[in-house]
Amino acid sequence: MNRITLRDFLIGVCCIPLLGQAQQRPNVIVFMVDDMGWQDTSYPFYKEVTAFNTYYETPHMVQLAKEGVAFTDAYATPVCTPSRASLMSGMNASRHGITNWTSPFKDRPTDAADLTFNRPEWNYNGLSPVKNINNTAVATTLPQLLKDNGYFTIHVGKAHWASAGTPGSNPYSMGFVVNVSGTSTGRPASYHGRDNFGRLTTDYHGTENLQEYFGQDIFLTEAITQEALKTLDFPIAQKQPFFLNLCHYALHDPLMPDPRFYQKYVDKGLSEQEAKYASMIEGMDKSLGDVMTYLDKKGVANNTYIIFISDNGGLTLPPSRGGKAYTHNKPLRSGKGSIYEGGIRVPLIIKGPHVQQVGRRVGEPVIIEDLFPTILEMTQTTGEIQQIVDGESMVPLLKNRKTVDQNRSLIFHIPNKWTANDGDGFNFRSAIRKGDFKLVKNIRDQSLELYHLADDIGERNNLIDNRKYNKIKQELISELEDILTNNSAPMPVRK
Amino acid sequence: MNRITLRDFLIGVCCIPLLGQAQQRPNVIVFMVDDMGWQDTSYPFYKEVTAFNTYYETPHMVQLAKEGVAFTDAYATPVCTPSRASLMSGMNASRHGITNWTSPFKDRPTDAADLTFNRPEWNYNGLSPVKNINNTAVATTLPQLLKDNGYFTIHVGKAHWASAGTPGSNPYSMGFVVNVSGTSTGRPASYHGRDNFGRLTTDYHGTENLQEYFGQDIFLTEAITQEALKTLDFPIAQKQPFFLNLCHYALHDPLMPDPRFYQKYVDKGLSEQEAKYASMIEGMDKSLGDVMTYLDKKGVANNTYIIFISDNGGLTLPPSRGGKAYTHNKPLRSGKGSIYEGGIRVPLIIKGPHVQQVGRRVGEPVIIEDLFPTILEMTQTTGEIQQIVDGESMVPLLKNRKTVDQNRSLIFHIPNKWTANDGDGFNFRSAIRKGDFKLVKNIRDQSLELYHLADDIGERNNLIDNRKYNKIKQELISELEDILTNNSAPMPVRK
Repeated sequence: MNRITLRDFLIGVCCIPLLGQAQQRPNVIVFMVDDMGWQDTSYPFYKEVTAFNTYYETPHMVQLAKEGVAFTDAYATPVCTPSRASLMSGMNASRHGITNWTSPFKDRPTDAADLTFNRPEWNYNGLSPVKNINNTAVATTLPQLLKDNGYFTIHVGKAHWASAGTPGSNPYSMGFVVNVSGTSTGRPASYHGRDNFGRLTTDYHGTENLQEYFGQDIFLTEAITQEALKTLDFPIAQKQPFFLNLCHYALHDPLMPDPRFYQKYVDKGLSEQEAKYASMIEGMDKSLGDVMTYLDKKGVANNTYIIFISDNGGLTLPPSRGGKAYTHNKPLRSGKGSIYEGGIRVPLIIKGPHVQQVGRRVGEPVIIEDLFPTILEMTQTTGEIQQIVDGESMVPLLKNRKTVDQNRSLIFHIPNKWTANDGDGFNFRSAIRKGDFKLVKNIRDQSLELYHLADDIGERNNLIDNRKYNKIKQELISELEDILTNNSAPMPVRK
Repeated sequence: MNRITLRDFLIGVCCIPLLGQAQQRPNVIVFMVDDMGWQDTSYPFYKEVTAFNTYYETPHMVQLAKEGVAFTDAYATPVCTPSRASLMSGMNASRHGITNWTSPFKDRPTDAADLTFNRPEWNYNGLSPVKNINNTAVATTLPQLLKDNGYFTIHVGKAHWASAGTPGSNPYSMGFVVNVSGTSTGRPASYHGRDNFGRLTTDYHGTENLQEYFGQDIFLTEAITQEALKTLDFPIAQKQPFFLNLCHYALHDPLMPDPRFYQKYVDKGLSEQEAKYASMIEGMDKSLGDVMTYLDKKGVANNTYIIFISDNGGLTLPPSRGGKAYTHNKPLRSGKGSIYEGGIRVPLIIKGPHVQQVGRRVGEPVIIEDLFPTILEMTQTTGEIQQIVDGESMVPLLKNRKTVDQNRSLIFHIPNKWTANDGDGFNFRSAIRKGDFKLVKNIRDQSLELYHLADDIGERNNLIDNRKYNKIKQELISELEDILTNNSAPMPVRK
């Protein structure tokens, strides 16, 4: 009974902790697109194929959904930094208090001026891996946990977790082993290599680590992709599991034509602005295809999760976009910055080793902070986490083991003045989604709206005064209030 | 006889290729200082302690020399890019043809205008890991070979191997797994974190990947050090051998006071300019000390080589430096840019596992391209190398197994107009050192000089017309000519 065989010995002493474990633990790629709306794809997240699904061409997203699962009710926050901080920390925006985009510069809240309110005391310096920096949310970050667990962690592209002058602006301090281009800035100065991506102008948004492409006819999305794939060679050769946080600058403005695809969309009859936008979408989709091809070629596709997500809804304000304001995410209402679905509902597709019954669509509402515990579970990563994690693992959903939980509520909170006008659902808003219902609160005038999303995805039919829904209304009002209070969510201060 | 024991099996199949090799292979750190002269230290490389050795304080260099070996006759090239390209490629400057500093911008030779000569057709776009880019030298790089051999390769600080718009400007394309701050630029816009290291101004020299320190009271040398040590955590935790190319911007101009040390040198009576310079030296030496302390703390000091070197001689031109031109490297003649010893003789100290009889001084002439085969031998790295390697491994010298080879010749070649005036040994020069003799050729007027360095380290006594040395003179003339011809060395073209 106590005899140790050669095989036992090898498995117990030598191979498992070295070779075995390293090979078996899955790799994870977060493929994050910036400002991509729920309809900016040929994959139909809505129950019907929309006009947008026919304009835009994203064959690799369609392929990814076929090989994985698509989430029709996935959420982020209305603007970028809060979503990125939630991914890194697992915290809801109302808890981490980074409720608006962070300035590249420290101690410069980005709130627009308002006649009625002073800005809330939010964490305008962003996320921080260390304590005692004013106006930051402190967290044990996802890449740090993964790195401590032996994962080769890579950040490529847009970071924008925190302001310069804080460690949160530095991917190397946030737990990444490798960084390409991640800084405190949220958009590029230019997408064109021909313009040196704007790095050599006075615009501080110029991207870093991309000098190789200066003066060349290359679109930023392509350069970012080539750099990302380059970083994977070493961990794959060394059989180290990797986590790649591949964050495209596209589709963020400045909207610029990706010359590989632009003319096609002009020929399709799109306006100049929308043809630019469509070309940026297809450039991003090509990047996804290139990543998938690379993984196949390297023989690691089957052991790699790809999580495709956007950080908020699609931009819906002309003149950046063509057409009429608030129509760019139809059937969803409004767009980036808004508390309505167009601002917060995002494309989410996950493919990977634990995904069962591929090609499924999941209607369970999920939110960006869920990716934190999801990725920890995917990678069997444990460790001491100093913050309270709001997210819930999606792994049961990937395994098709969970049905819709009507009791879970998702919270959205932007107590800031994001932009000069209140648009359609911009500025000083909170919302809660539970089951099919969504309650929206306008902090400015304390008004409330209630929508039944299953019947009214466009949030046109406000049920707040319909006595039939009195119970759910009261429940959502008090739950939203309780959660915001418990999370010490930032609130604007009346002058 | 054919029985395989458990131990044989483990050694042969499992442990050696995974655990054993990874732990045993030594780490290598190249600690490169920019524009540091042979006398810019309290370690006396000259046979006597000089005034400089008493002004400047570099206790950690002294410690490193005590624990390793110091090379009194180590050489680089007169300016930075050629030296850095030689380190990366093993090629002599006359062979790689990158004979002057490369512009941050592609296709912009940096040669000053001259009345008599047009610039040589040199490789002004720098070193390249791929073929078919005009005016580049193609090489299989040192980090690429190490990376392919399983080394975790890291570049931190100044790169300056090639111009932007080429892969040589990108450490990730040059074979590095990690890059912090390496670009096509050769100096910072500012050394002060308080000034954001100049990154947010119109000066394109602003360093990348250092936003964390923006607005803070930190000197660039310190920021670079902190970032470098951060990058080592992961390979050490994973028991992967590493190669760290830690290249300080200091002591390159702009000369700026390192506030941690500046006042001390003012109090010592140094001029403002020289006190700044001394403070930058001590800041660099503190960095070396921090690296050594870190390695100790991590338990890898005994398995790590530290190679301390400068890329050329110390700057000797007021007003950047205080005092009188061409005196800053005494007893050596002239300084940076010059073919005289002050421009090319550099501090070199090596400590590490194969170093025998520590505390020794080695008088064998060695040159920066020797580091390429030295590091390959240290790390037992083999691989296909497309270029001809001129360097010779110093490992026998480290083992104290080699005596001075009177037959080896070292070649120096700067056929460019580096700066507006010909200074003391600047512009259009070649030289050869063999044994104790050095022949200097001025390409402009074809004049020759011959020095006996052992007797005349200051190159004051030109022996060219002394018939006693006719034989060595003729030998050096023809050897220099042969080598430059064989290497297809670039040459200026008379107008």
